[in-house]
Amino acid sequence: MSLEKQDVFTLRWGIIGTGLIASWFVSDLVLDPSTHRNEPNLIHKVQAIGSSSHQKGTAFAQKHIPSTSTSNGCSIYDSYAQVYTDPAVDIVYIATPTGLHFTNALDAIRAGKHVLCEKPMTITTSESEQLIAAARAKGVFLMEALWTRFFPIAKELQRALHEKKLIGDITRVFVDFGLDMPLEKQKDGSRLVDLRLGAGCLLDIGIYALTWARMALCGAKEDEGEEPAVRSAMVLKEGVDEEATVLLIQQKMGRQAVCSASYRYKSGKVFGRVEGSEGCIEIVGGAASKPESLVIRRKDGMETVRDFSFVGWGFFYEADAVAMDIRDGRTENETMPLEETVRVMRIMDEVRRQNGMKYPHEE
Amino acid sequence: MSLEKQDVFTLRWGIIGTGLIASWFVSDLVLDPSTHRNEPNLIHKVQAIGSSSHQKGTAFAQKHIPSTSTSNGCSIYDSYAQVYTDPAVDIVYIATPTGLHFTNALDAIRAGKHVLCEKPMTITTSESEQLIAAARAKGVFLMEALWTRFFPIAKELQRALHEKKLIGDITRVFVDFGLDMPLEKQKDGSRLVDLRLGAGCLLDIGIYALTWARMALCGAKEDEGEEPAVRSAMVLKEGVDEEATVLLIQQKMGRQAVCSASYRYKSGKVFGRVEGSEGCIEIVGGAASKPESLVIRRKDGMETVRDFSFVGWGFFYEADAVAMDIRDGRTENETMPLEETVRVMRIMDEVRRQNGMKYPHEE
Repeated sequence: MSLEKQDVFTLRWGIIGTGLIASWFVSDLVLDPSTHRNEPNLIHKVQAIGSSSHQKGTAFAQKHIPSTSTSNGCSIYDSYAQVYTDPAVDIVYIATPTGLHFTNALDAIRAGKHVLCEKPMTITTSESEQLIAAARAKGVFLMEALWTRFFPIAKELQRALHEKKLIGDITRVFVDFGLDMPLEKQKDGSRLVDLRLGAGCLLDIGIYALTWARMALCGAKEDEGEEPAVRSAMVLKEGVDEEATVLLIQQKMGRQAVCSASYRYKSGKVFGRVEGSEGCIEIVGGAASKPESLVIRRKDGMETVRDFSFVGWGFFYEADAVAMDIRDGRTENETMPLEETVRVMRIMDEVRRQNGMKYPHEE
Repeated sequence: MSLEKQDVFTLRWGIIGTGLIASWFVSDLVLDPSTHRNEPNLIHKVQAIGSSSHQKGTAFAQKHIPSTSTSNGCSIYDSYAQVYTDPAVDIVYIATPTGLHFTNALDAIRAGKHVLCEKPMTITTSESEQLIAAARAKGVFLMEALWTRFFPIAKELQRALHEKKLIGDITRVFVDFGLDMPLEKQKDGSRLVDLRLGAGCLLDIGIYALTWARMALCGAKEDEGEEPAVRSAMVLKEGVDEEATVLLIQQKMGRQAVCSASYRYKSGKVFGRVEGSEGCIEIVGGAASKPESLVIRRKDGMETVRDFSFVGWGFFYEADAVAMDIRDGRTENETMPLEETVRVMRIMDEVRRQNGMKYPHEE
């Protein structure tokens, strides 16, 4: 066995859910790693797919997993439970609608699997805390799949703001995630309108805006992580938030963020802007989930545009990070710590409280 | 006497304060009317200037009133009181720092003068209500000088939104007014830092953002004027708001606005955006007080850019409207009704209440 061979680590994924986000995630898992990384020592294997029917799972696998890939020999199950109990599966990726995350993730954890759960981790903070406790009790890895935090552009933004301090003291952050998919045009039972599935723009896309804001507001040092005050507005349609705006204020640091989400109008290419005492950084791209470049404008006139576009959807960045955590025996990720999941869930709970927005299973 | 001569109406202005905004206002009063209107039947005469010293008033007049203009024979007084009692003065324009508006306007009203008072009318709603009551008791004209409401671009925006309904149902409005003049760089005693003079960005420039938002949110019909809920954040430096963000929500109408103001970063050229079910309108210009064009983007792909730039500062639009009101015996203006002054003052009171921002004379 060569040294190279010894170094190779294969992570075997069980996929729960066969919707759009699962298809993107799997496409990225099986993407030629040379398109996005140099180290050849991580291998992602799609080991199992759990779906409501064998037929659906097979169609998903045929469509998204090329026969030449390392995902050959993928098991297709017509239940999620079979994925959780498959001894060949190392980690379960939960890509069901938000309202089902809690049950699905808890079942996977209880079966002893590591879990990567799509964002938001759950509907409420309390559910997230229960999942975290369960994962810790079992000693398994758990992470909320806030994939955008793993993008090189996100890491560079944080370096530019908090380490290089390219725009001086950060003062104000604007992030908008708008999509043109008004609720009245959605089918009954769609995850966009069904509260039982976790409908609502705050938890669906507002979380991306909050994530950018948190990255911009919070420096590396713990002492800078002043807990923000939250002020918010929601436009509700039959109990579902079609629009949400969240203000985060860190009075001590003199910083604030305006995070907005809408299902009624697609945001512009400049979806984010971080202002500081010496300039601003614009975050540009197709959406807050698809950042492509940073425009750094300093007050001294210097302007720099940095391109961070890539092939694929960008899930491979988080998948690689997760693989390294599991390879090295870590049960939590440094870029997306569970504490941050809870902090953002708390903000979203508070926003819903301020606007009387409730899910069916809440008292 | 010819018919033309008979039709000419001359409004004789008394100017209180000789700061920047007074200089702009006076420059516009004496601007050749052919640059901005066709009707030759209104004449603005700068009748009197009230300043703290005769020297300052003279310098102001020499600098801003060309000797060839209709403002020849302008009286320079080293007190405001002399302006109020000058029988040749029809209307007093109050351009002192905000903290002094109440006293100055009240004195002018009590002396029986019509009053145009710079925005915001006063520090508090209660003071505005007192001025309104005083003006009504005296039967004089009173208006808050929200000059931007009189710009052709503002009127066209409202027509496009509420009459032509070019972007369908209005859903969300963003307006930012940011200037790069951080408080720590201001001199002691400057109106920007001295709370007694009305320091703070909300009352100074946030009011422009609120004004655009109000024009976008509120249609012509009374029944559309749903009172908005207010949510807000302020960043305070030694008690002065250096940044303020205000969310206005009209839940019934399904509309919201994000209005922001900052002394720490200059807003971009697209300082406003109104979104609707069928498109959006961007408001473009040097600042929220200097709008220049509207970009109408419909979801069907139609894009129109309409230019509304003009010579001068744009105060002549409101000055002409005021002149016609006074000529025709009206004591209130339709474009900037006193009721709207009170509504916006109430919003600003509420924002300050929510953020613990107080002026010295408030309990």
